[in-house]
Amino acid sequence: MATMNKQIMLAARPVGFPKESDFKLVESPVPTPGEGQFLVRSLYLSVDPYMRGRMSGKKSYAAPVEIGQVMIGGAVGQVVESRHPQFAAGEIAVGMFGWQHYAVSDGAGVRKVDPSIAPISTALGVLGMPGLTAYFGLLEIGRPQAGETVVVSGAAGAVGSIVGQIAKIKGCHVVGIAGTDEKVRYVVEDLGFDTAFNYKTTPNYYRKLLQLCPNGIDVYFDNVGGEITDAVVRLINVRARLVICGQISQYNLERPEMGPRWLWTLITKQAKVEGFLVFQFADRNQEALKQMAEWMKEGKLKYHESIVEGIENAPRAFIGMLRGENIGKQLVKLAAWEGAYGS
Amino acid sequence: MATMNKQIMLAARPVGFPKESDFKLVESPVPTPGEGQFLVRSLYLSVDPYMRGRMSGKKSYAAPVEIGQVMIGGAVGQVVESRHPQFAAGEIAVGMFGWQHYAVSDGAGVRKVDPSIAPISTALGVLGMPGLTAYFGLLEIGRPQAGETVVVSGAAGAVGSIVGQIAKIKGCHVVGIAGTDEKVRYVVEDLGFDTAFNYKTTPNYYRKLLQLCPNGIDVYFDNVGGEITDAVVRLINVRARLVICGQISQYNLERPEMGPRWLWTLITKQAKVEGFLVFQFADRNQEALKQMAEWMKEGKLKYHESIVEGIENAPRAFIGMLRGENIGKQLVKLAAWEGAYGS
Repeated sequence: MATMNKQIMLAARPVGFPKESDFKLVESPVPTPGEGQFLVRSLYLSVDPYMRGRMSGKKSYAAPVEIGQVMIGGAVGQVVESRHPQFAAGEIAVGMFGWQHYAVSDGAGVRKVDPSIAPISTALGVLGMPGLTAYFGLLEIGRPQAGETVVVSGAAGAVGSIVGQIAKIKGCHVVGIAGTDEKVRYVVEDLGFDTAFNYKTTPNYYRKLLQLCPNGIDVYFDNVGGEITDAVVRLINVRARLVICGQISQYNLERPEMGPRWLWTLITKQAKVEGFLVFQFADRNQEALKQMAEWMKEGKLKYHESIVEGIENAPRAFIGMLRGENIGKQLVKLAAWEGAYGS
Repeated sequence: MATMNKQIMLAARPVGFPKESDFKLVESPVPTPGEGQFLVRSLYLSVDPYMRGRMSGKKSYAAPVEIGQVMIGGAVGQVVESRHPQFAAGEIAVGMFGWQHYAVSDGAGVRKVDPSIAPISTALGVLGMPGLTAYFGLLEIGRPQAGETVVVSGAAGAVGSIVGQIAKIKGCHVVGIAGTDEKVRYVVEDLGFDTAFNYKTTPNYYRKLLQLCPNGIDVYFDNVGGEITDAVVRLINVRARLVICGQISQYNLERPEMGPRWLWTLITKQAKVEGFLVFQFADRNQEALKQMAEWMKEGKLKYHESIVEGIENAPRAFIGMLRGENIGKQLVKLAAWEGAYGS
């Protein structure tokens, strides 16, 4: 194959907010799959908040990306050459193929995508990791009951936008928190949240939530952390469930932020705060994807994609996502696919 | 009845740490029970950390004590006169009789005590609210498994001392945190904790815990909050359970303390923090008390009482308990009982 592979490597560990110079675009020969492997050409890359954690050198639930390594990340692509018994050339697959045009895979953690169900890009969003995160986090950790009040921060993001819609499907009063008026309009008018507010133009989160949640808060799906979460805690009901999915307000801080201690509230409210990773529910992914696809078909579950083109723009897309510039799922389109949704 | 009733009233809402002048001893006629009521003469009063919350005017899970009202609290006593079908004169009962010698009760929330099982004072400790708190908090919220590491703060207190022993019964590695060398010796040598340390003479809680918990921390039973809890969080294992029972380090602060935000750790460790009140398990109290009495008989569950005599010393006992001066259960003895354990 004469084409060269384009890859984005981690060039430096970010200090505070990542900069474009923390990444580097390199070219290398397209790799050749060995026995039991296949070569995939990625069509869309995903940029997600969790990647910020992997860029720091700290030990966490997964190994950090080393300097000079290709950035990790999910991508959906087409198998172009296969020596793997379960993947055939031409098939669409989603996996952790990294920030590059071509990747070789042994199939571990790779899932085939049926392009007749939805556009293949959704395998990185509503029908992928963010959608599964919303589904399991809300339903298994948050366990919302009809009539309860569910508050979701990062409401217009890839996860939050799905959380709020599932909560509506379950009959809850849904309140979104987002960072622009356009996002607020999007989650209420397009997605059907009951109400939402722009935290960047709201001086007192507590007062605003008090007004929007007259029956208190039963479930909080937290994508952001910090002062928004503090305000929510002041309004939780007895037996409330706080689902900790992300803490994006904290990821780019050089030192841990201080906040008021509120564990006492958990006692008086007999309440629970629980963190989770989507992987812990992996054995139920198929069930969840089937349900989400049904909801999409019924028009109950909508999604939006913010797409930039070209791998060279992946760092900018990632940084923009951390700044909250996207609505819905932020993707990087690498190539057009000859097939099409429904074809 | 010619005897007068002695009562301790709330005289002032404490600012910061309570003072003896926040309480007032008064005398009043002994009340007369009406139809469906009985008169009880209290023999032991309990002083507990939760009372600090009731002394402040803030709304919480229970109504505050008003200025001029008798201080609320549990007591064990003898029925002296009854017009209640289920309580007979001479019987021993435990209930929220308040800080006073004599109380009239309609039986709501009152439990009869069988003096043949254990000394009647235990109805306020190991076989009472603190014991039930330890039992349900550890077993239902903490759910310790054999071989896991359980850390308990306030380890020598009425609740913590029981928590650690139940965790030992369940086959766990148990680490206690207490505030004097005598308490450390007590929980290790007398109660059988694997190890313990005096936080007041330990400059770095994290390093100490790192050394005492080589396999990390699976369950943390939190009676104190603050910096001890922060240190524990840095060492939790995947799927750890943090049981929030008390936050005694925070109760006497005039304004909320700030601490480092650590919700992110809950995500990476897929961990849970849950607060509880013993009342939520009330329908299972009999089962728990039966089990605890069995463990006591088998010599697996020990207890210690710190007793002061005279109702006029109840405020001092309460303040001392908040300062950690007691080992085990702090009681105030009001009168001798003619009966005796086992009689």
